[in-house]
Amino acid sequence: MGTVQGFDAAYARLAGALFEQVRALSRDGSGVTRASYGDVETRVLAHLARTAAAEGIATSYDAAGNLWMTVSGRDRSRPAVVAGSHADSVPRGGNYDGLAGIVAGLVCAIRMCRERVPPERPFTTVAFRGEESAWFGKPYLGSAALLGKLTDKDLALQHRDTGYPLMFYMREAGADTQRVLRGEPLVDLRSIAAYLELHIEQGPVLEDAGRPIGIVTGIRGNFRYRTIRCLGTAGHSGAVPKRMRQDAVFAVADLLSRIEEAWDEWLLGGHDLVVTSGVLHTNADTHAPSIIPGEVWFSLEARSRSQETLDGFRRAIAAECDAIGEARGVRFEFDEPILSAPATMDGALVERHARMCAERGIGYMRIPSGAGHDAALFANAGIPAAMIFVRNQHGSHNPDEAMLIDDFMLGTGLLYEAALAI
Amino acid sequence: MGTVQGFDAAYARLAGALFEQVRALSRDGSGVTRASYGDVETRVLAHLARTAAAEGIATSYDAAGNLWMTVSGRDRSRPAVVAGSHADSVPRGGNYDGLAGIVAGLVCAIRMCRERVPPERPFTTVAFRGEESAWFGKPYLGSAALLGKLTDKDLALQHRDTGYPLMFYMREAGADTQRVLRGEPLVDLRSIAAYLELHIEQGPVLEDAGRPIGIVTGIRGNFRYRTIRCLGTAGHSGAVPKRMRQDAVFAVADLLSRIEEAWDEWLLGGHDLVVTSGVLHTNADTHAPSIIPGEVWFSLEARSRSQETLDGFRRAIAAECDAIGEARGVRFEFDEPILSAPATMDGALVERHARMCAERGIGYMRIPSGAGHDAALFANAGIPAAMIFVRNQHGSHNPDEAMLIDDFMLGTGLLYEAALAI
Repeated sequence: MGTVQGFDAAYARLAGALFEQVRALSRDGSGVTRASYGDVETRVLAHLARTAAAEGIATSYDAAGNLWMTVSGRDRSRPAVVAGSHADSVPRGGNYDGLAGIVAGLVCAIRMCRERVPPERPFTTVAFRGEESAWFGKPYLGSAALLGKLTDKDLALQHRDTGYPLMFYMREAGADTQRVLRGEPLVDLRSIAAYLELHIEQGPVLEDAGRPIGIVTGIRGNFRYRTIRCLGTAGHSGAVPKRMRQDAVFAVADLLSRIEEAWDEWLLGGHDLVVTSGVLHTNADTHAPSIIPGEVWFSLEARSRSQETLDGFRRAIAAECDAIGEARGVRFEFDEPILSAPATMDGALVERHARMCAERGIGYMRIPSGAGHDAALFANAGIPAAMIFVRNQHGSHNPDEAMLIDDFMLGTGLLYEAALAI
Repeated sequence: MGTVQGFDAAYARLAGALFEQVRALSRDGSGVTRASYGDVETRVLAHLARTAAAEGIATSYDAAGNLWMTVSGRDRSRPAVVAGSHADSVPRGGNYDGLAGIVAGLVCAIRMCRERVPPERPFTTVAFRGEESAWFGKPYLGSAALLGKLTDKDLALQHRDTGYPLMFYMREAGADTQRVLRGEPLVDLRSIAAYLELHIEQGPVLEDAGRPIGIVTGIRGNFRYRTIRCLGTAGHSGAVPKRMRQDAVFAVADLLSRIEEAWDEWLLGGHDLVVTSGVLHTNADTHAPSIIPGEVWFSLEARSRSQETLDGFRRAIAAECDAIGEARGVRFEFDEPILSAPATMDGALVERHARMCAERGIGYMRIPSGAGHDAALFANAGIPAAMIFVRNQHGSHNPDEAMLIDDFMLGTGLLYEAALAI
């Protein structure tokens, strides 16, 4: 479809160049790595700030280290439209997850400046830090800090590689952790009229349906155990009869099979639910093919649009662990779960976006978001929030993640019109 | 019961001192680590050789780097009685697994020298290298080399930590790998009348039965895949519906649960069988709680006294992998399996050992060996072989492995009398 909404090809080239510049800053093998509150994330924010400043856009950092890029509105006293997404990525992930929403907002802002079309209200693009839970186990760190939702327990969360606390990394990135710990919003929330986030879908639904745009209706919440430990008894793999074994690997395999069976039943029962054990390993210091495994560590998370489903499934898992522990003589140790509440997008904004797509002949569908997004926190803080999904290929959180720039510009066009219309 | 078979307390103290000296050479946390064809194993052999030489026992190394400690017989031309076991251990394993059989032979030899009771035939104690499969995936490396059974493929097996080939480590340890590769025995096998191996049981059976000594009837064979890879598709843990996932962790959990179910059925059907997946992990470079796991690596081995059972169970596993691959859209990649044949101990030697126990009032039982031992290779090479198990506590292949020195001296007494009687 080429460019739409009056965006000429120069903006598509500008967006493409920005994506490649950030990719070059964060390349890691065939993918990109931008750790939450890490050095690469900091350099990416600095590059975006320089780009914005060169176009005459005002830039600043909030006390959580997030970057704000603002085009003054004709009426500066009115609450702003905030567009945003996150600058970090999972380890060796894709370039567009998060970055697309920031580039979209920045391209809109640049167009407002270049074409001297000031919005009615201030229009701010925020580049959030630390949205990906891969690094500290908890998502939405930058936006949670902004909204006054990070606790001292959160700031003690350990980095997946170094074990250093989030507190350390936030300070290194220039955040004022004393202020964050006060637990109050870092800006007056009444100054935000709406939060709009463009994001790649991260799933196969739009691609399968052949539609470039998704209008998000709600965002799944989740519970996540970063590390569950199953403790059995090590022993010689040949010398212990089956009835005398407490094999941690077979115990965890049994647990996961029971969880998958329950998952199938809950889906049949009409629940919205996905379950993932993304990290699983025996003890690398002592394991061997000839040793009955005495320990297994694994992560476990479930996501649903329904808090009731999440709570019920969590109880079902605990019951299975008790039953398996009893039957097999093993023990499950759970860490503190990390909980994210489901969120609903603003109905009026959803309708407006859908209408805009329909009027302009853009292929779209309403779609729930399986993944979590900073938008969930804004919605749950009472700020009208909406998300525009852009079709993408090969999923996300992996180096093969892809997106067509034409699809991206369709979404950016919607964002532009939405920002001017609010 | 104190000392028996005329072994006075000085020999128990000597054995205890030898165990502690070797433990000191190989301590690793609360356990010991003596890698196959590694530096610590070399130092242990050197210490044993010095100890033997100081007692007037002749020492030499064969072309595979195994240590031979020989007391001349009254008739040097007659085939020798060879006692032996292995000097290596699993990572952070126990001190007695392997070492006990060497110390037992050496204590017998020292007694022959000190008390001037030369055996009729030469009596040799061999300290084998590389019996534990934990390091290169394949067991019995030193004794297989001795018997001319190591191939060029075996010498290319990679070390679990460094990835360097066995060839490299054998050369570092002074072995003549060119000669080993000829595939011929390194000694004239007709010069060996019998092979006797004392070893801790490594399982709970003797301890449970309250008997200090086991007379081994046969040794389980096994097949082992060091690394099976399950390949699915990575993706965002929230954004992909269940029906569109190819989750490698749930696939492997399903496989292991089916294998365990089949194992139970085969046990009910009267088969001798144990199954272990001791090493299991997602990809540490890319895994995260929020990523659908696209890869899982795991080891898989089964052990049985029956070759038919091993072959049948291997086919059953392959069929399950095909079924799961089909149903889930994942793929299993198998490495080359390492195969060890089951072995039967020499009937006449077994009867003689049992008779000796009965006559001396030693609590014993006939017992199959679940674990593999160098003795299996001797038996399968046509050399009469027998094993004496010593009761032990807390299993083996772990730092808590234990053995009472009184039980050990009972077994050593049996070995001493057997060596003089053959």
